[in-house]
Amino acid sequence: MTQTREAFEARLRRIGAERYHDKHPFHDMLHSGRCTPDQVRAWVINRYYYQHTIPMKDAAFMSRVEEPALRRAWRSRIEDHDGTAENEGGIERWLRLADAVGLDRDYVASRQGVLPATRFACDAYVRFVRDKTLLEAVASSLTELFAPAIHANRIEGLLAHYDFADDRSLSYFKRRLSEAPKDVAFGLKWVLDHADTQEKQDAAAAALEFKTDVLWAQLDALHSAYVAPARIPPGGWQPGTHLIRVAA
Amino acid sequence: MTQTREAFEARLRRIGAERYHDKHPFHDMLHSGRCTPDQVRAWVINRYYYQHTIPMKDAAFMSRVEEPALRRAWRSRIEDHDGTAENEGGIERWLRLADAVGLDRDYVASRQGVLPATRFACDAYVRFVRDKTLLEAVASSLTELFAPAIHANRIEGLLAHYDFADDRSLSYFKRRLSEAPKDVAFGLKWVLDHADTQEKQDAAAAALEFKTDVLWAQLDALHSAYVAPARIPPGGWQPGTHLIRVAA
Repeated sequence: MTQTREAFEARLRRIGAERYHDKHPFHDMLHSGRCTPDQVRAWVINRYYYQHTIPMKDAAFMSRVEEPALRRAWRSRIEDHDGTAENEGGIERWLRLADAVGLDRDYVASRQGVLPATRFACDAYVRFVRDKTLLEAVASSLTELFAPAIHANRIEGLLAHYDFADDRSLSYFKRRLSEAPKDVAFGLKWVLDHADTQEKQDAAAAALEFKTDVLWAQLDALHSAYVAPARIPPGGWQPGTHLIRVAA
Repeated sequence: MTQTREAFEARLRRIGAERYHDKHPFHDMLHSGRCTPDQVRAWVINRYYYQHTIPMKDAAFMSRVEEPALRRAWRSRIEDHDGTAENEGGIERWLRLADAVGLDRDYVASRQGVLPATRFACDAYVRFVRDKTLLEAVASSLTELFAPAIHANRIEGLLAHYDFADDRSLSYFKRRLSEAPKDVAFGLKWVLDHADTQEKQDAAAAALEFKTDVLWAQLDALHSAYVAPARIPPGGWQPGTHLIRVAA
């Protein structure tokens, strides 16, 4: 049976409550100061791969949209990450975080050393958006509904527990606090407007579950590789390497 | 510089020596009898997803081949897995293994409960074969060079340590001992014949590395989810569920 708009929105929010990666133990470690400097670096390196993927995902989406108005509304997501004349963009802000934790930013940007499981998960997201219906593609972006809480929590936790954390190094997260709500308000309304049958509601809910899997799998891979008993897969970043000389 | 045929083959074999998943600790556990029944089941459920992917990967390859002779040579791979009038096929043999370890075969075949990281890795393989050059696609199949040794080792280890293991339940692996060498002899010759520049040799070597990553990531996900300290991701199979009643 097709759910009411309100019931369907509640169903989507429940997926976040049950499966969003704020519940992953790696985030507990990170936000409570229990990560070593190298564990923080491993997170920065691998999460960069996700950041690098997002504008490609958004371009894949726009390449399939026939309505100029929808493309126009979506375009700011690419600008937010890739930057504009006035805004350096989220990818550059993420590399500033890489600087702050002592990593060679060129190495991070090269995406060498990224865990294969991180690549597989992020690439699956791009392909999902390229191959599925527009409704499923928009629905998969709705993890942004749950992002502001984790970003606020992260800013507070990192500032409290790590020397590298300050307004400059954490600017990526601060900025997302204002960008994400704008994007997700649009995306949520679009999904609620277009998921007008049970079949479409089920597909949209499955798409959001898929996206929570993409996020969770990245933290599982990170935990497996870099938290004791650590098993770094062949080709993964080796702790202590690709660091910059830190000024005294 | 372009390597000689012999040097290039040695380079490919070295990738196996360094990165093939026979070196993963989960295989040590499995082959030496240190897996619990539920850990064996988790392996059977997740590896089924890989088995289910292989004929789709081979069809994706054939869909891009213009030479009837090459398609004809490749076709037996699909028959080996999907079966013919005379041969039940590898997928059916894998489900027989599922029966033997006490799993509901319909559940296994449904692919519910498969770890998201397993899906992402196997799906990445299909997409790789669909998107890359034919040379890279064939090169990615060359992990079969290293498979007979692990299959022989597995048959011996499972027979020695687990009650479920017998000729019938392990027929998948026995059969692969004769199928894989035929396929890989063809694939290796094809790659050596076609990788006639340094650029192509590098691409073929990278494709084989990619494939070792696909295999390794599956075992990492399995280890992370089901070996202490186990962290089963949302949606993953729960030990003790979906079992068949075992006759006394």
